[in-house]
Amino acid sequence: MSGSLREQFEVDLQSIEDQLVEMTRLVGSAMSRATTALLDADLAIAESVIAADEQVDALHHDLEERALVLIARQAPVATDLRVLIAALRMSADLERMGDLARHVAKLARLRYPNSAVPPELHSDILEMGHVAQRLVVKTGSIIAGRDLKAAGELEADDDEMDRLHRGLFAKLVDPTWSHGVETAVDITLAGRYYERYGDHAVAVARRVVFLVTGDHAAAHGESPN
Amino acid sequence: MSGSLREQFEVDLQSIEDQLVEMTRLVGSAMSRATTALLDADLAIAESVIAADEQVDALHHDLEERALVLIARQAPVATDLRVLIAALRMSADLERMGDLARHVAKLARLRYPNSAVPPELHSDILEMGHVAQRLVVKTGSIIAGRDLKAAGELEADDDEMDRLHRGLFAKLVDPTWSHGVETAVDITLAGRYYERYGDHAVAVARRVVFLVTGDHAAAHGESPN
Repeated sequence: MSGSLREQFEVDLQSIEDQLVEMTRLVGSAMSRATTALLDADLAIAESVIAADEQVDALHHDLEERALVLIARQAPVATDLRVLIAALRMSADLERMGDLARHVAKLARLRYPNSAVPPELHSDILEMGHVAQRLVVKTGSIIAGRDLKAAGELEADDDEMDRLHRGLFAKLVDPTWSHGVETAVDITLAGRYYERYGDHAVAVARRVVFLVTGDHAAAHGESPN
Repeated sequence: MSGSLREQFEVDLQSIEDQLVEMTRLVGSAMSRATTALLDADLAIAESVIAADEQVDALHHDLEERALVLIARQAPVATDLRVLIAALRMSADLERMGDLARHVAKLARLRYPNSAVPPELHSDILEMGHVAQRLVVKTGSIIAGRDLKAAGELEADDDEMDRLHRGLFAKLVDPTWSHGVETAVDITLAGRYYERYGDHAVAVARRVVFLVTGDHAAAHGESPN
């Protein structure tokens, strides 16, 4: 690649990276607002989250198209190619995080004017929402700044999410559970949405770590389980 | 690309396609056996499904590596590039389907020596297992034979999966439900695993349809919801 082509390529890569960071911001806001909608049975917020997911989908498709055009036109060297392929995957993860936030919002809408979450589980779901927010903010700064220290903290946040998720299930199946099966089904699904959201955030961060360090161990569990 | 390079490229593409078909076979067998393990509380089958998922993961990572090397070495033209990128995505979907079969098997193991599925839901879960099997077999033949007729039928199968999924939920929240919350939580998760498995099968098929027809509408809903 000549100098000026290289320069243009760097500009294009930076623009793709900026778009990924913008997507973390959007899906972070979506999950944060979806959590509010779920806990407060706020229909207007739920509807706005559901509608706003289109924007994330559009950014995802735009990013895919741009990355493909870059690969096809520039025939990038192996390292650049890996960055672009990783960007495609990160975009898919982020798009899925948007879907999961939309699922939470749809649960809020389904049970409106009631809250799908009984009072004694409010703090659990609120905390899962907070951890989700921490995860996605860190994921954004890992993309933007190759911040490997944040990547380590992110794994701890994800452990916290798993702990909250297990705690939620324990409360559902406790003999003292008094909210019936429908609410248990709702909470089971909501818990799974938050947990998967966290998994995808971690998957995005791991892809960045792998690009920076080449450390396959850190990038392992690449498919969020 | 020179003639002989082109020939080699075609051979490499075919080998990647064969590997995708092999993955459909493996994740199909995994979900079929996981369903048996779940319904019959068969621990040995559950353990074998859980262990066998490593093979799908290994095929996925191998395919990723080979596709990346092909892209990097051959700098394929736009159409070939799209095929390779689509193969990467299909492989990721299939890997995820393996995970979901493993999740079903883990549920079987968790409740052993009991079955996680109460007798009156056996036929529902069995039917979801059958539909999953139909979906993945069709997905395999769509990859292998660009069989667009099967692609249409696959959408109908997926609708059937969604119908079964809704029916399952309806039974859980029915006032006559007598199996308690823990079983309801298990069935909620199992139902979600089958539904997501179907979504990913459809996503794989849609990617093939898009490659063959260029029809973006058919490829829409590209992210399995």
